[in-house]
Amino acid sequence: MKLSELGEFGLIAKIRERFPAPDGMTGIGDDCAVLPQNTGHQTLVSTDMLVEGTHFLLDRIPPYDLGWKSAAVNLSDIAAMGGQPTGTFLSLALPASTDSEWLDEFLRGYADVSERFSTPLLGGDTTGSPDRICINVTVLGEAPYATVRKRSDAKKGDLICVTGPLGDSAAGLKAVLDSVEHDPDVQKLIERHYRPMPRVVEGQQLRLNLGVHAMMDISDGIGSDLMHILEASEMNAEINLASLPFSLALKHVCQRFGWNPAELAVCGGEDYELLFTCTPQAEMLLTIPHFVIGRITDRAHGTPEITWRGAPASSFSGFDHFKKGK
Amino acid sequence: MKLSELGEFGLIAKIRERFPAPDGMTGIGDDCAVLPQNTGHQTLVSTDMLVEGTHFLLDRIPPYDLGWKSAAVNLSDIAAMGGQPTGTFLSLALPASTDSEWLDEFLRGYADVSERFSTPLLGGDTTGSPDRICINVTVLGEAPYATVRKRSDAKKGDLICVTGPLGDSAAGLKAVLDSVEHDPDVQKLIERHYRPMPRVVEGQQLRLNLGVHAMMDISDGIGSDLMHILEASEMNAEINLASLPFSLALKHVCQRFGWNPAELAVCGGEDYELLFTCTPQAEMLLTIPHFVIGRITDRAHGTPEITWRGAPASSFSGFDHFKKGK
Repeated sequence: MKLSELGEFGLIAKIRERFPAPDGMTGIGDDCAVLPQNTGHQTLVSTDMLVEGTHFLLDRIPPYDLGWKSAAVNLSDIAAMGGQPTGTFLSLALPASTDSEWLDEFLRGYADVSERFSTPLLGGDTTGSPDRICINVTVLGEAPYATVRKRSDAKKGDLICVTGPLGDSAAGLKAVLDSVEHDPDVQKLIERHYRPMPRVVEGQQLRLNLGVHAMMDISDGIGSDLMHILEASEMNAEINLASLPFSLALKHVCQRFGWNPAELAVCGGEDYELLFTCTPQAEMLLTIPHFVIGRITDRAHGTPEITWRGAPASSFSGFDHFKKGK
Repeated sequence: MKLSELGEFGLIAKIRERFPAPDGMTGIGDDCAVLPQNTGHQTLVSTDMLVEGTHFLLDRIPPYDLGWKSAAVNLSDIAAMGGQPTGTFLSLALPASTDSEWLDEFLRGYADVSERFSTPLLGGDTTGSPDRICINVTVLGEAPYATVRKRSDAKKGDLICVTGPLGDSAAGLKAVLDSVEHDPDVQKLIERHYRPMPRVVEGQQLRLNLGVHAMMDISDGIGSDLMHILEASEMNAEINLASLPFSLALKHVCQRFGWNPAELAVCGGEDYELLFTCTPQAEMLLTIPHFVIGRITDRAHGTPEITWRGAPASSFSGFDHFKKGK
């Protein structure tokens, strides 16, 4: 069998089966691995690989932005557990033809995120590559014991919330791929795609609120990402499409080009906002910006389901994709 | 400027300059990063990237061996600090055409090393790749505070030792590349190349001996690796080529094909034995297998130098390479 038939989730299932998580540790299957420490703290670890031609096109993404994004998406995984990032490790495979100026700009973007979130680069590996650039970042973080937020923590009756507008990143990517004319709105969306802002402070605030249950970051789009929470928590969900938060820039650009903002929000990914569930009481106490978009419902049996209220979600071109939980 | 002119060490220098290590942490420049913990322990972290076409040829290395080696070379970095590996993180970028059977064998090899050294796989990333396989492993480990062994710890008068025979791996690689006829000796050397054994137990034993000073694992060959110790410790060294330990298999194969075992030991890499320095008194107390190959000498000024005794080392084809410390 080829990998193309097995699929990414088949591959992960294969790895999980062979490498069960040791007692007391959360291994494969959440945003981070969680390693308990003697001090009552937990060490969080996450790792992400970016391959030229799969995750980015070298002639499209500016090197500064690629450096930014490489660090930011990893910090976002720590944010998704409510942790504090403590350091990163960068592996870089570069063809011999790589420009030194390209590298300087890449490192500048990486350094800017690192400084902004006080997360030093502590090590890594540099090596040659026959042709394509390959980047791997591992991030370490920490959080007080028993307060990290996992995907499996959603409870019946929880509100479903996000920390910011959705769909910007997907619209920015679409603008790049369709080579649409740039105006300030388009530019803003492209920036949201290339320079996502990890919600580290927001994640920590949410962790301190005991009524906040499941949490993760939005990397694949809420249609797909919410499915992970529902699977891990054995719940269903209702989403009110009319409640999805859109930025002004997204509304303008969608109007201009006839794009559907709800489709971009649901099926498009890489917003790197936090998606979390909490009790209605806890929601009233939240001091960070957030938007309620739906609620968690009971599941009697079978596979998880999302009920989409307020629009014919089945008309989205990416619907099948997210319905199956990717 | 192209990366081919900058070189790997120029690239690392550039990264170090932009990302200085925070107080109390050892960042870029040793086998592992060292992060002090509140408990008096230290967390060790190392990461390595392997790219198809640069580090391995898919039609040569059996997938089991590639899985073994991917995990083993990372555990070796923890061994080189005298630490205990606690978990690994595996990122895999695979083309869609990858065979599921290939993957099973890769994971089996990775799992066998993991089990042998009680080091669970705790997470990772799986992703597509347009053509080549790219593998990144991050390993975490721990060691009691202030007892890790760094490259900068060598003292004048120290003996220079290794934990096992040298040159086997380089000879195994040469046998593969030259497609020489296999016999049991050749087979043994190829195994040493493809399935290196991280010296985890030996590293921990060495860490407990206070007279053991600098330590690292042999990945580039002692000519190049010893230079790292000399640079970090500001010392020189004398190596007695007649004292280099060779396996019987290496001696047989070198005799058969007219290869020079000393050249393979000095210029060839990937033996993954430990290279360490210690006082003569400490050496007498060592209970692990080891071989004394030279001693650390004072350096008045200038760049580090290795004096090679007992053979015209300058005749080795790789001599320039290791003389410059790579």
